[in-house]
Amino acid sequence: MTTEATTPAERWRDPRVPVAERVRDLMARMTPREKVAQLYGVWVGIDSGGEVAPHQHDFVAQLDFDELPQHGIGQLTRVFGTRPIAPEVGAHSLARTQRQIIEGGRFGIPAVVHEECLTGLAAWQATVYPSPLCWGASFEPDLVRRMAFHIGRSMSALGVHQGLAPVLDVTRDLRWGRVEETIGEDPHLVGTVGAAFVAGLESAGIVATLKHFAGHSASRAGRNLAPVSIGPREMADVILPPFEMALRAGARSVMNSYSGVDGVPVAADPTVLTDLLRGEYGFTGTVVADYFAVPFLHMLHGVATGREDSAGQALIAGIDVELPTVDCYGDPLLAAVESGSVDGALVDRALERVLRQKCELGLLDPGYSPDPAANLDLDDEESRALAGELAERSIVLLHNDGVLPLTGRRVAVVGPRANDPGALMGCYSFPLHVGVHHPDVPMGIDVPTVLDRLRGDHDVTYALGCPVLGGTDEEISEAVETARHAEVCVAVLGDQAGLFGGGTSGEGCDAADLQLPGRQEELLEALLATGTPVVLVLLSGRPYELSRQIDRLAAAVCGFYPGEEGAAAVAGVLSGRINPSGRLPVSFPGAGASQPSTYLTAALGARSEVSTVDPTPLFPFGHGLSYAPATWVRVTADTQEWPTGGTCRVATTLHNDTDRGTSEVVQIYLHDPVAEVARPVRQLIGAVKVELEPGQTRTVTTVLHADLTAYTGRAGHRQVDPGEVELHVGRSSADIHTAVRLTMTGPRREVGFDRVLTPEFEIDC
Amino acid sequence: MTTEATTPAERWRDPRVPVAERVRDLMARMTPREKVAQLYGVWVGIDSGGEVAPHQHDFVAQLDFDELPQHGIGQLTRVFGTRPIAPEVGAHSLARTQRQIIEGGRFGIPAVVHEECLTGLAAWQATVYPSPLCWGASFEPDLVRRMAFHIGRSMSALGVHQGLAPVLDVTRDLRWGRVEETIGEDPHLVGTVGAAFVAGLESAGIVATLKHFAGHSASRAGRNLAPVSIGPREMADVILPPFEMALRAGARSVMNSYSGVDGVPVAADPTVLTDLLRGEYGFTGTVVADYFAVPFLHMLHGVATGREDSAGQALIAGIDVELPTVDCYGDPLLAAVESGSVDGALVDRALERVLRQKCELGLLDPGYSPDPAANLDLDDEESRALAGELAERSIVLLHNDGVLPLTGRRVAVVGPRANDPGALMGCYSFPLHVGVHHPDVPMGIDVPTVLDRLRGDHDVTYALGCPVLGGTDEEISEAVETARHAEVCVAVLGDQAGLFGGGTSGEGCDAADLQLPGRQEELLEALLATGTPVVLVLLSGRPYELSRQIDRLAAAVCGFYPGEEGAAAVAGVLSGRINPSGRLPVSFPGAGASQPSTYLTAALGARSEVSTVDPTPLFPFGHGLSYAPATWVRVTADTQEWPTGGTCRVATTLHNDTDRGTSEVVQIYLHDPVAEVARPVRQLIGAVKVELEPGQTRTVTTVLHADLTAYTGRAGHRQVDPGEVELHVGRSSADIHTAVRLTMTGPRREVGFDRVLTPEFEIDC
Repeated sequence: MTTEATTPAERWRDPRVPVAERVRDLMARMTPREKVAQLYGVWVGIDSGGEVAPHQHDFVAQLDFDELPQHGIGQLTRVFGTRPIAPEVGAHSLARTQRQIIEGGRFGIPAVVHEECLTGLAAWQATVYPSPLCWGASFEPDLVRRMAFHIGRSMSALGVHQGLAPVLDVTRDLRWGRVEETIGEDPHLVGTVGAAFVAGLESAGIVATLKHFAGHSASRAGRNLAPVSIGPREMADVILPPFEMALRAGARSVMNSYSGVDGVPVAADPTVLTDLLRGEYGFTGTVVADYFAVPFLHMLHGVATGREDSAGQALIAGIDVELPTVDCYGDPLLAAVESGSVDGALVDRALERVLRQKCELGLLDPGYSPDPAANLDLDDEESRALAGELAERSIVLLHNDGVLPLTGRRVAVVGPRANDPGALMGCYSFPLHVGVHHPDVPMGIDVPTVLDRLRGDHDVTYALGCPVLGGTDEEISEAVETARHAEVCVAVLGDQAGLFGGGTSGEGCDAADLQLPGRQEELLEALLATGTPVVLVLLSGRPYELSRQIDRLAAAVCGFYPGEEGAAAVAGVLSGRINPSGRLPVSFPGAGASQPSTYLTAALGARSEVSTVDPTPLFPFGHGLSYAPATWVRVTADTQEWPTGGTCRVATTLHNDTDRGTSEVVQIYLHDPVAEVARPVRQLIGAVKVELEPGQTRTVTTVLHADLTAYTGRAGHRQVDPGEVELHVGRSSADIHTAVRLTMTGPRREVGFDRVLTPEFEIDC
Repeated sequence: MTTEATTPAERWRDPRVPVAERVRDLMARMTPREKVAQLYGVWVGIDSGGEVAPHQHDFVAQLDFDELPQHGIGQLTRVFGTRPIAPEVGAHSLARTQRQIIEGGRFGIPAVVHEECLTGLAAWQATVYPSPLCWGASFEPDLVRRMAFHIGRSMSALGVHQGLAPVLDVTRDLRWGRVEETIGEDPHLVGTVGAAFVAGLESAGIVATLKHFAGHSASRAGRNLAPVSIGPREMADVILPPFEMALRAGARSVMNSYSGVDGVPVAADPTVLTDLLRGEYGFTGTVVADYFAVPFLHMLHGVATGREDSAGQALIAGIDVELPTVDCYGDPLLAAVESGSVDGALVDRALERVLRQKCELGLLDPGYSPDPAANLDLDDEESRALAGELAERSIVLLHNDGVLPLTGRRVAVVGPRANDPGALMGCYSFPLHVGVHHPDVPMGIDVPTVLDRLRGDHDVTYALGCPVLGGTDEEISEAVETARHAEVCVAVLGDQAGLFGGGTSGEGCDAADLQLPGRQEELLEALLATGTPVVLVLLSGRPYELSRQIDRLAAAVCGFYPGEEGAAAVAGVLSGRINPSGRLPVSFPGAGASQPSTYLTAALGARSEVSTVDPTPLFPFGHGLSYAPATWVRVTADTQEWPTGGTCRVATTLHNDTDRGTSEVVQIYLHDPVAEVARPVRQLIGAVKVELEPGQTRTVTTVLHADLTAYTGRAGHRQVDPGEVELHVGRSSADIHTAVRLTMTGPRREVGFDRVLTPEFEIDC
């Protein structure tokens, strides 16, 4: 063998030796203490002196960072994410710490360094990109892929290896605070866009982490971490497909969901983390714990007796790495192995995955250097441009009576979200995430507000109206006066994103109902009463009830959290510089709004309910207007028969008879009139954004494999049935241009993880 | 054989022949057409001429009642329930119809006649009893049993054989319109009280029908018939136990749930209706379809292609009788059998069950006479007294700052529920049920209102305030003036029960949120602003949000729908004649109310959530005040070790140091700190109402079998685990007097349908 040249003592360090062999060699040399040390993270931060220091939490073990490196450390948690440290300072202090780890232990294995990166790298002075609902609204996976590549490149430059994104939870209840972190309420859209994010991040060499596997979004009443009441079929057909798509895009890590699903916490469930993920999906990467999910097994779920039991159950289930810091996988796990209550082979199983990943990342190579890149500008021109482009492509024009675009008129800008840079950012952005503990930290990046950007285009007056929460009658009166003297009023309302009670949207910031927070609806009513046309701009983490005002609003624009360049995008849409092309990734609730409800369940409801509560949305999934709407010429299929193992081609011809460029999102929904189980009346199986120059006619041909009609039947297997189906092709889930009836022919087929998950699109010209 | 004496031609008619043999003999003689005729009901009503006539529905086959009897008819649907017909007229016309059926067919098999009987027999001039939430609130199963026996006796007198009650759905979402039909949100309470109702009805010879098996109450967002997202463990541990308890109490019929559970409509699910119900539970009675549930398989759920397919699927699943009328089980089923798409043996399977039940009911006996009893007073003194007693025992005093009991003061009575007899009745009462189609029908019984009853005790002024929905500013002002001039204001607010949009509570009358309907909260605020002490009396089908007013209310009393004698009970509590002893069977939501939430899930939430939405109820499950509260002396257990196959005894000593008789409901909750799955923090396993004379001390000893700690573990089996448990003994689910810690000893045990489901109570003196 060619590897004979390497001496046994060095085989694991030799890049020429196959990875599996290197890992095996290394493992054989390690003590139990050294082994478990690779299975936990240590939460560190950079202290005021620029040194890495452990982050202390009330309920976890106090850590001695001088002692830890001698055993090795699996991961370093959130080096950049907890304090406003200049990238150069942070990166070099991280490098010193890695050297300390390398030099402190017998093997010198560097830690994997992970960071949050949902709306860009969660570090000071890094670009804040649009939040995931904007990604969904863009219906442009490729743009999201490019963004993720940029994010990954900046992480790599700092010495970060793993990013804790994307969130692939499918929104099930709009009251949940983390709706803003999701890509939307449709599995196909979440999967398509989420997979693009994964591809982008991974192509920059960063380990993408899929979260939260699986079921986090379906917590009861949208209360964060509340029990999840769903059955296996809903899990398979709604919750899991985005993970399948993202795994196929190359994700190398998965994070468990905190949830107890039908009573079983995922962190202790081998049927999910091992049988499904490893067995059915063939996943070979690492499973990392959501923060504190391992001790939560005894602290919150009541399925374990203490740290040792939690460690054992999580390890058996398939959690390879405890995050954020060592609580159960250190001494308690070691004790469990020594007492025999946990099989040491399970430690080796997790260790092998961790070391294989480190090996593949080059961390075990002799030439490994922890030094950061030379250029550490985390918010360069290219990133800002990309953030701006995605924002522009994701703004959704909900409603317009003709007042938009605004043409140089006197504009009153009011509302709590008009002049706050934080209004443009999701809860996982560094400024908001860190703002909880460091409220006086400067943002570190330039974030113009909507007010700033509108001032460039219009003769603007401004009044706050009210804060997001609270406020006075005087503030509202002042805003009313301001509106009264203007030709048009732009009311910028919405959420303060935050964490654990620090906002009206965001992780732990759940809503009891979908009324605009605080006095904002009252403000809106007062503005409407002036008679001045009111344009609502919603910057929020979730849709809110607008049904009481919509008929009186001159226009409504939804931006979700469009990121640091989002204000320009909003102003661009208002002024008409930008022709809006976003489409809703989540439905806006109708008058009888009651949650949970999404277009998938509301549509099912439409044919199965006898109730005074009407779940019909005000603005359906997929909805979005344009200043230059495309004309739909025709939709045709190439066949009336669609083999259960084959494809059909649906051609959609669009024409732009306006005098400006425009976009249309061609949306293809499946309607299966009769199946073994009740299916949604309409479910997205393909969507593509098409650009049209003035006067241009284009045809987009969608090649749909029969696998896209698959669902989980009575027997619990995913199957493609023969029989009648309809393809509903249109502008939104409620605005169907053509229903194409097809007969699926041939035998029933069972399909698995390797089924076709996305259509192909051929666009002429 | 002794039966040799009977000639073969008559064997099925011979009461001396064993039932199985009679049925077999009869079946062998029947044509396929005659067979299927036994498997459907025909919806009839008594027309204005006093004749039975078929009830026509838009989407079912038009029926020729002259032709039908020649084939036989399985059931007659709602003979009394659709028109205001005097009992004598109805009963004699039913008897004529039965003769027509007997004489029309070759075998002369009478139809089973079924009626609704949830709040008493749904017939004109029959007693309207308190609704099921009141049964739960009474915590007195024996009283409910007596009521059901009375109801059954009146049904029997008319010639009715089967009653479509009780509803055993466990409330999961307070927005659901049918919450008023449930006994509450706790499986043990629902099961205990529901089983008592079954025992009472069956002891009168009436076939009790358990509904809705299983999962109806867990529809998404509480929208009636919306999809049900629950997993198998929640089904087993929350939804099913009441059915198990009621089956063991002798119920002879089960009605399917309309629901699709995790995508599979129960009406087409053999795993529920056959494998579970027949296989595991050993049920041998009939399964009847909820009204239109068979055609709903193709009309609503989209799992069948049409009537024939729906018929086949329902029959295969285990629905023996199509109700309310023939749509799928007539010609379509016959065609399916003839074409071979449905096995004729399945028709025989259902037929055997139907005929066995008819045989056991005596309908096949030569001496059978359809003539009604002589005394057809459906609302006699005894029934009224029983209705009044149950009402008195179920009123819940929620809150009292000392204003109650009222002592002869000038009382302003206001509110839409004060002077409407319908305010006292649930949606399945005859007057409200029938009122939809016959709004001008006289009630037929004497139903004093709360206003009527208060007039007897106090110097009363009255104003409407507002209707349940709508109303004018003037009406509110008038009520405010009325309140201003009184010493105390009694505001009687709540629901209009109704069906399918005809009310604010009731089947199909779901709520989008839990605010008091219409302008009632505004009225309440206006009354509170007068400074006159306000006593709220809530007559409603569900708890509403009272958190915004509770601190300013002088007192609050909840009556749910207390029935025709309920006003006297309410007035008795207000005046102090009655010492209230009801306890809440459903939680009242707290300030951050968001649904779904019950005490079981909210309690779990308390240790598993990180959310800004606090599910803590305002008034918890089990809560209820008394004018003469019992003193809790001590709670002790006879052991610290509790064998997993044995019992423990918990003694609770209560003392009454007041000068009037009182009641206490001793409630025992299980707390299981560590289990294989996440369990509710607290779950009721036993409750008993104890009466205490002035000065009396009593000890109630509860004998708890370890089976009461059983839950469904990871493997899907119900198991009793060794280990630590706590018994939380107290006044409500949130007011625990003593937590008794016990160690379950011995091996883990698997338990089944025959496990111990209720404790035994020994009360001294």
